[in-house]
Amino acid sequence: MQNYTDYDATALAELVRRRETTPAELLEAAIARCEVVNPALNAVIVPLFEQARAQAAGALPDGPFAGVPFLLKDLVATLAGAPLANGCKALKRRGWQPPHDSELVARFKSAGLLIFGKTNSPEFGLVGYTEPEAWGATRNPWSPAHTPGGSSGGSAAAVAAGIVPMAHGGDGGGSIRIPAGHCGLFGLKPSRGRVPLGPDHAEAWWGAVQEGVLSRSVRDSAAMLDWICGPDAGAPYVVAKPATPFAAALAAPPRPLRIGAVLAAPDTPIAPDCRAAVEDAMGLLAGLGHAVEEVPLPYQHEVLAGHYLTMYFSEVAAELRELAGPLGRPARRGDVELETWILGRIGEGLSAAEASVARRGWNALARGMADFHRRYDLLLLPVAATPPARIGELKTPPLQRSALAAIDAIGAIRLLRGAIQQQARLNFARTPFTQLANITGQPAMSVPLHWNAAGLPIGVQFVAPIGDEATLFALAGQLEQARPWFDRRPPPAGG
Amino acid sequence: MQNYTDYDATALAELVRRRETTPAELLEAAIARCEVVNPALNAVIVPLFEQARAQAAGALPDGPFAGVPFLLKDLVATLAGAPLANGCKALKRRGWQPPHDSELVARFKSAGLLIFGKTNSPEFGLVGYTEPEAWGATRNPWSPAHTPGGSSGGSAAAVAAGIVPMAHGGDGGGSIRIPAGHCGLFGLKPSRGRVPLGPDHAEAWWGAVQEGVLSRSVRDSAAMLDWICGPDAGAPYVVAKPATPFAAALAAPPRPLRIGAVLAAPDTPIAPDCRAAVEDAMGLLAGLGHAVEEVPLPYQHEVLAGHYLTMYFSEVAAELRELAGPLGRPARRGDVELETWILGRIGEGLSAAEASVARRGWNALARGMADFHRRYDLLLLPVAATPPARIGELKTPPLQRSALAAIDAIGAIRLLRGAIQQQARLNFARTPFTQLANITGQPAMSVPLHWNAAGLPIGVQFVAPIGDEATLFALAGQLEQARPWFDRRPPPAGG
Repeated sequence: MQNYTDYDATALAELVRRRETTPAELLEAAIARCEVVNPALNAVIVPLFEQARAQAAGALPDGPFAGVPFLLKDLVATLAGAPLANGCKALKRRGWQPPHDSELVARFKSAGLLIFGKTNSPEFGLVGYTEPEAWGATRNPWSPAHTPGGSSGGSAAAVAAGIVPMAHGGDGGGSIRIPAGHCGLFGLKPSRGRVPLGPDHAEAWWGAVQEGVLSRSVRDSAAMLDWICGPDAGAPYVVAKPATPFAAALAAPPRPLRIGAVLAAPDTPIAPDCRAAVEDAMGLLAGLGHAVEEVPLPYQHEVLAGHYLTMYFSEVAAELRELAGPLGRPARRGDVELETWILGRIGEGLSAAEASVARRGWNALARGMADFHRRYDLLLLPVAATPPARIGELKTPPLQRSALAAIDAIGAIRLLRGAIQQQARLNFARTPFTQLANITGQPAMSVPLHWNAAGLPIGVQFVAPIGDEATLFALAGQLEQARPWFDRRPPPAGG
Repeated sequence: MQNYTDYDATALAELVRRRETTPAELLEAAIARCEVVNPALNAVIVPLFEQARAQAAGALPDGPFAGVPFLLKDLVATLAGAPLANGCKALKRRGWQPPHDSELVARFKSAGLLIFGKTNSPEFGLVGYTEPEAWGATRNPWSPAHTPGGSSGGSAAAVAAGIVPMAHGGDGGGSIRIPAGHCGLFGLKPSRGRVPLGPDHAEAWWGAVQEGVLSRSVRDSAAMLDWICGPDAGAPYVVAKPATPFAAALAAPPRPLRIGAVLAAPDTPIAPDCRAAVEDAMGLLAGLGHAVEEVPLPYQHEVLAGHYLTMYFSEVAAELRELAGPLGRPARRGDVELETWILGRIGEGLSAAEASVARRGWNALARGMADFHRRYDLLLLPVAATPPARIGELKTPPLQRSALAAIDAIGAIRLLRGAIQQQARLNFARTPFTQLANITGQPAMSVPLHWNAAGLPIGVQFVAPIGDEATLFALAGQLEQARPWFDRRPPPAGG
């Protein structure tokens, strides 16, 4: 083996298979890299080095990634014997350990991956940046003053900095795509139901959440999805594995595709850098023989935001109620960040009827996208409406925060609701383009084709009809060949 | 053609294909039968004879049931140009007509079926008997003093009385299985996501509702499910068609199955007739080489009832809010039955957080059933806890009704909630065994193997792992051969 960071996961596994390296050697390379770059990044928050070393020394499952170092996002995916904080202050303090592996983690293990740490996440994965009070901010390897995005920001920073070639992430509103876009990585949110959330979850966030990975190469994401997809026992829907593996979609370029591209949206201004990234992609796609044309945003942003936020408030409230399980007592205000607490209060104040009506609204958005796809194979749009924000920029300002605490103390839910909805919408305006695929269940990917003048990555997003990850992978493979990004690495200052 | 009622739908379609009869002749036979038996039964509430006659006179789609008369339950499935009341007083008064066919109705049409009427349903399909104020009670052909069950009671009565060999139904809490069980028919609720609910619905009742048919022969239900299954554009999950058609499952008996049978349940007394039906089935199954043993109810009834009713109250509230669409103004108390109005009030009073927590509870029930299926291929249990009730027996008693109206007038939601929850639980206690499969998404069927001393049918229920309708069909075919029920018809007094 030459330099550990020169390989993707598929290539590292091949080296292990050919006995040109060993799992232990790869693990030590990953740990060494982590020890160099992580202090500045704060990507890996829970090291599990010794468990991984013990694992690497023994017999590994004969999976596609046997011996490849791997990191788990510290959210939802439970690993028996390791703490799970979900970015939450109280769970971190308690050092809570779930009793069993989630099905997804079991599949990561059976793939032969060496899980040697857990990566940072905002509290309950609620926002598109990664600065939880519990663990502090994760920084972007491309520019430590900027966020890597979120909620899978720890995993994105770790991959971009070369600690691992691929890491676990989850996406309930853009949480794979946003950090992939901010860190120059490939990140695909699978179709709803593609990857099991069991046994502890069935649907999460009304089916918005899908888990998966962020990777440097397209083939790593495809081969991993092939391995982890397929329903587990007791799943709420039976979404079968594809007849042809996703990895096979990379063997040939896709047929000429009809692609509708969004360059402007009412109510959601798009920063010039993000518009430039889409324009750049449009040119590249046209050169590859695809039929690309500008389209208006194929849904009403205000309608989408309303239906999405109703789910969001309700689910935060449920999350806080369920904290009683691991905490052994009902959750209190100090157990979570102030914003989280207030979001939950709003959810408690919504009626079940409003939630049911919003859920029905999700269907209208999905049927609208089905109409769009009668004319276009794919939707192309920005991942985010702005380049990566500066660390701290997206947090609630201290002044507003103390005002919120005061309002919360007097129990003025109506005022709180207004103030926090405003803050939620402000953050939403930075990343208004990712929730669509979570609501409709469609697969969507962020592809790293563009860097701005400041040297920050600006991803572009493609959305396919539900179930059609194959077309996304085929196109991503074609783009990766036409405009390779694998060797484009952050400046040494960032790691 | 000999006697129209001697054939199932598959055989009738075959007669048409062989030109031994014509669609018009079949339709006239069905209409004639309807005109004889329906006045006493009140199964068909909206005749669509002239549309069907025009259809029968033209070229029919070359589907599996070309020329076979068919009835639609007047709930959810929209037929363009025909009124849809959903059992609702105000919608009936308004004569509301949906603007387009639902995807399921389009598939019924492309199967070549002749839709010549709509069948009775309780308001919004909310209960397991069919006595809406809008249309009056439907009666059981086996005994006009008794209910055919519900909510697909109109369809069940029509099939049992020989008006059609097969009719449309939907099942969100047992609404296919209960009326099939009460009317001596075969009725299978498909797996969640198997049959599309679009474009107007995605999931209905949090994914509890699946549509399908009630039939006299097993093969009719299997061939129909083969035709109607598979996702439509914009569906929230991609549940693929099975690799092998369900109809093929009938070609051979199933492998010897491990079957766990419930004969008693804490908190939910089972009437002797219903217990006898299960015992009878156990003997029959053992004789066919299956391994049958008694098991305790594999879930906690109180937990299930709580999580189910939270959904139910929330969804009724949403239904009432959405009445504003077709009515052109917000719904008022007189638009629906008093009980429906109060159920909605309860739903408005529940918080979105409670709804999200209940929905998470559904997952625990599904995972519990996954554990059960590690030991047993199928769960056998009664369809209902009692034989068919007498007409009127399940309605809220007049005295309680006037008390409820008084409480509602003073807006005492807490009191209402108590009173109606008690009534809901009383009705639930009659049919406590069907909601499980709606919550978990598992396929489940009612098989007509038993009749009580009074001559009333007592169905038994089988539940399979999600996605495994094939095993249910294979077993049903075997049971149908071992204990044929096709020629067992209601006494002439009932039609």
